[in-house]
Amino acid sequence: MKKSPIDTVFAQGESNPYGKFFTGQTYLTMLSAADPVFNAPIGNVTFEPGARTHWHKHAGGQILLVLNGEGRYRERGKEIQILKKGDVVRIPADVEHWHGAAPDSWFVHVSVETNPSKGPATWLEAVTDEEYK
Amino acid sequence: MKKSPIDTVFAQGESNPYGKFFTGQTYLTMLSAADPVFNAPIGNVTFEPGARTHWHKHAGGQILLVLNGEGRYRERGKEIQILKKGDVVRIPADVEHWHGAAPDSWFVHVSVETNPSKGPATWLEAVTDEEYK
Repeated sequence: MKKSPIDTVFAQGESNPYGKFFTGQTYLTMLSAADPVFNAPIGNVTFEPGARTHWHKHAGGQILLVLNGEGRYRERGKEIQILKKGDVVRIPADVEHWHGAAPDSWFVHVSVETNPSKGPATWLEAVTDEEYK
Repeated sequence: MKKSPIDTVFAQGESNPYGKFFTGQTYLTMLSAADPVFNAPIGNVTFEPGARTHWHKHAGGQILLVLNGEGRYRERGKEIQILKKGDVVRIPADVEHWHGAAPDSWFVHVSVETNPSKGPATWLEAVTDEEYK
């Protein structure tokens, strides 16, 4: 494990157990586990430069809170967005998208999974280098 | 408005519009507004030293993600807890509690209101200086 050179605010955590749905190296710390009481799974994800999720969608939506570094966000069919510390992304249910680090920057965001009772994320194909750049 | 001497990660925001339910000066930036689509109102709250909420409870619970500074958390009838950057507090529904800054430190936390469809917060009496110290 490489230690992040930028402040992750929360613990960097271990190598992401969902790594097979990501390209490159990412780390996950669960801040509030999935449960039927709070209904709001919250995790902190740290991406090494160039790392990103596969294309995916959430049955109940997701909110990203950017803590540090520079990242990327793209919804299928739309322009890529640059993300910086302090940015918030509200991803509606069933919208295909990916997120990750910039090619030359570590990136840290909190993920809040909304309406988890509507079902899990659906993971799709990897983001190609061409799509990423 | 005083500018926070510690990093608030997200914008410090304006003087808290719910200030009548707080003791001392606090600032609020909504990161994701209340709505029936995401069902997860998220705000960032910055407390000046000594500032704290009144006693209150949430019909659907609340999760606090501590971003910076040193704070305090107390549930009715329990010991006071010291909060530091990286800490998470999961506050069950209907549990009377308060949170705020340490006497000598600014304090910044993200608040995630869980299960908002269960109803709003109920605000109770102010936390006295004796209870606070």
